[in-house]
Amino acid sequence: MLRDFAMADKPNKDEIQAELAIEREKLVQHQIKVKEAGLPVMVIFEGWGSSGKGSVIGRVIKNIDPRFFRVHSMASPTPEEQRYPFLHRYLKQIPEAGKFGFFDRFWMEETISQHLSGSLTKSEYRRRMRSITTTERSLTDNGYLVMKFFLHISRQTQRKRLDQLLADKESNWRVDNDDLRENENYHEYLDAYGRYLTNTNSPNAPWYIVDATNRKWTELQVLQFLNQGIETALANHALAHPILQNIFALKRMPRLADIELEGKQIEPEEYSERLRALHEELGKLQFEIYRHRIPVIIAYEGWDAAGKGGNIKRITSALDCRGYVVHPIASPEPHEKARHYLWRFWTRLPKNGHAAVFDRTWYGRVLVERLEGFCSENDWQRAYNEINEFERELHDWGAVVIKFWVQIDNQTQLQRFTDRQNNPEKQWKITEEDWRNREKWDAYTRAVDEMIRKTSTVHAPWHILESNDKRYARIKALQILVDALREALENKTDSGNAK
Amino acid sequence: MLRDFAMADKPNKDEIQAELAIEREKLVQHQIKVKEAGLPVMVIFEGWGSSGKGSVIGRVIKNIDPRFFRVHSMASPTPEEQRYPFLHRYLKQIPEAGKFGFFDRFWMEETISQHLSGSLTKSEYRRRMRSITTTERSLTDNGYLVMKFFLHISRQTQRKRLDQLLADKESNWRVDNDDLRENENYHEYLDAYGRYLTNTNSPNAPWYIVDATNRKWTELQVLQFLNQGIETALANHALAHPILQNIFALKRMPRLADIELEGKQIEPEEYSERLRALHEELGKLQFEIYRHRIPVIIAYEGWDAAGKGGNIKRITSALDCRGYVVHPIASPEPHEKARHYLWRFWTRLPKNGHAAVFDRTWYGRVLVERLEGFCSENDWQRAYNEINEFERELHDWGAVVIKFWVQIDNQTQLQRFTDRQNNPEKQWKITEEDWRNREKWDAYTRAVDEMIRKTSTVHAPWHILESNDKRYARIKALQILVDALREALENKTDSGNAK
Repeated sequence: MLRDFAMADKPNKDEIQAELAIEREKLVQHQIKVKEAGLPVMVIFEGWGSSGKGSVIGRVIKNIDPRFFRVHSMASPTPEEQRYPFLHRYLKQIPEAGKFGFFDRFWMEETISQHLSGSLTKSEYRRRMRSITTTERSLTDNGYLVMKFFLHISRQTQRKRLDQLLADKESNWRVDNDDLRENENYHEYLDAYGRYLTNTNSPNAPWYIVDATNRKWTELQVLQFLNQGIETALANHALAHPILQNIFALKRMPRLADIELEGKQIEPEEYSERLRALHEELGKLQFEIYRHRIPVIIAYEGWDAAGKGGNIKRITSALDCRGYVVHPIASPEPHEKARHYLWRFWTRLPKNGHAAVFDRTWYGRVLVERLEGFCSENDWQRAYNEINEFERELHDWGAVVIKFWVQIDNQTQLQRFTDRQNNPEKQWKITEEDWRNREKWDAYTRAVDEMIRKTSTVHAPWHILESNDKRYARIKALQILVDALREALENKTDSGNAK
Repeated sequence: MLRDFAMADKPNKDEIQAELAIEREKLVQHQIKVKEAGLPVMVIFEGWGSSGKGSVIGRVIKNIDPRFFRVHSMASPTPEEQRYPFLHRYLKQIPEAGKFGFFDRFWMEETISQHLSGSLTKSEYRRRMRSITTTERSLTDNGYLVMKFFLHISRQTQRKRLDQLLADKESNWRVDNDDLRENENYHEYLDAYGRYLTNTNSPNAPWYIVDATNRKWTELQVLQFLNQGIETALANHALAHPILQNIFALKRMPRLADIELEGKQIEPEEYSERLRALHEELGKLQFEIYRHRIPVIIAYEGWDAAGKGGNIKRITSALDCRGYVVHPIASPEPHEKARHYLWRFWTRLPKNGHAAVFDRTWYGRVLVERLEGFCSENDWQRAYNEINEFERELHDWGAVVIKFWVQIDNQTQLQRFTDRQNNPEKQWKITEEDWRNREKWDAYTRAVDEMIRKTSTVHAPWHILESNDKRYARIKALQILVDALREALENKTDSGNAK
């Protein structure tokens, strides 16, 4: 793709100047429409060292009110950032609805440099391509405009610019070894960049290769593409997107109605004994998990009053309090609602070696948001696949991902609601909303059945916790967790990855 | 303080057990009241290595619903964290109203270890003490309960525990050189700890020294103090706090009514010329600022339609876009409102070498929040001093802090409002609220006069930008900024701190 790119015939100076005036004014107008439409716009600049990425960003943003954009300069990941998935530090920075995010380098740069330095195996590189393309698609499907520019210059041009920078004491610190290496091995990089562009080029987030030999000409090309992109996106806003085939290997799961709750109980004495034994084992496993830098993600969904809180507590009370966080998930705050629905979960991931427990989760998309109409049907229909992709990222990162559905029957819920209502110490746990949700039991049942069926992937299956007897559910949860951690540690040790 | 501490007579096992049951149940009850009262609770544990800080936190939180607390383990600052003020990484983590934050070590540990290693000068250490005490006071004055525990053990006990850990292959990694050094130089540390405790002990955030020779006994002492603290705080909620004397050296400033706006104008031609020259200089200065790692904070307040936006743009358009961020400040989001009012500014500070421009600021406390009754009179009366302290922290950190009040007269505002209303492209800039605020012109004038008078400290004075002629205001702002940066660079070079 890059080798085929012919530097287009550049217009002459006056033509460029005239066109620039038009395009700049267009962008001034567009920013208001972007804001009004609540369109989030990501403008990503990749390209050769000293191709002028910073400079073109500086020129483009001159046309935009500072309240409507942020510029992000993505350096190499810090040791802290390396303890999160590759995508994490990028997704953290995605703009809010109605705003622009400009990125001076993005995930391309990190991927290529690791690829060429040999720190990514071929299969890891292929996995990266998949992570990037699926994530870009998930962004655009969820209303993001993603504009990707590659600033292209010839080897000679780059050499000349580097020499100029190096010759001046005021600027020579701006040239680093990576720039020089890139110029030295220009053709190797050209091939790698070209392959990457081809692999990540798609109609929803296409690449724009920009002839960057001249500043104003660069700016003009970028503005033209950007303005076109915004116009198209504004015309398409609230477009429905194809529901992709859910190609994940799925586990066969029962429907809620077929889950046997009767007889799933444990007597207090046996309970205490097993609880103690599991706690002891879990405590030991946590240290191993910490030492092997394995991230753990535990997701809870379930009926109101099913006993999620108590269940979570039986897990966390066995853990060193410095190694886990519980995230209670309520309705999103404005700054969360203004971004991709998975953003608030991406930003809540634990670092490796730590655990995060989610008390309600990203599955809100296909449960409450679906049933209350907080998102469109197209949105929640797409979400099964988006969520499976998200969880595959977690799995590929090396995380233990455990999803619990805490199940009770309708009658048990009524009993517990009434108990809470009548107990002054528990009244805070029950609200009008709980009663209203209860009326939608059947609709929720259908949504849960569909969710469990479509998202019980082999890498992150659902586990049903029969919780008419809370003791039974707690022991079962602990046992599943202990088994999963043990398995993860065995795999880690087998593969010799232990640090 | 620490040398005088006599390990209290420990109750016997049964007594401890009985008391523990009572105190645990109390905490279970308290968590709901804390939540209902919206009380934010910080529980800070400092103390000797292997005194059991993590263990006691683990025991205490067993009584609290995971939704109501977070545990923070404060390790040494990372290189990234070192690019922010000392207080920054701690204040980032303060809990929301109604929640507990448990801290395994806090700002004491970092301060003492830097103090003893000699990396803090005496005057820097004294300044730390001041930062810590004023910040703790600002937290408690703004409704935080701050409980500080020091876990105390004897040299022999510590030695025994370290030896036990070292003897076991499973646990020896948990002992590091700092622990061993501490035990070796126990008395030196004892003195340093003792002095620190004395210096930072105050009625609003007192120290509790805990005899930590026995786990359950430790837990019991902590629970007793914590429960007492919560009870007192609940009884005192919404208490008014003393308005401290504003002891900062202040610059004499004019009242708004005395600011001459007439004749403060610049003709277009001169404007273009000066703008170009200032932009060029500012661009150069930014690189020096970046290389010398000086943080820059530019704060804008002013009347609606005074021209803040355009003024900001004339500054940022001269800057490399990767080196600054503009923060538009609207009303706080729920998670911001639930914390100390300065939290959303602490978390938006630039790292050193970078600039942050605030389009409206922390002065909202004494302007809109005062006038709309969003905080109590006691709250905004205290805020002048709290803000001066906050800005002194920024100044001591090495930041250039520039505060602009953008001034226009009542008639000019009316003219601009009407223009906006009549211009379809500018209508988005004007809202009903703007018209409502305009009716409160006189009340705002009084509030602004008081604000400028009380917060024009020598280290962070206000600058008035006469903006009936926007060109005049822009040139003045640029000149003030350029002068301030130049001065900061000269000081930096003089003091030989340049990196």
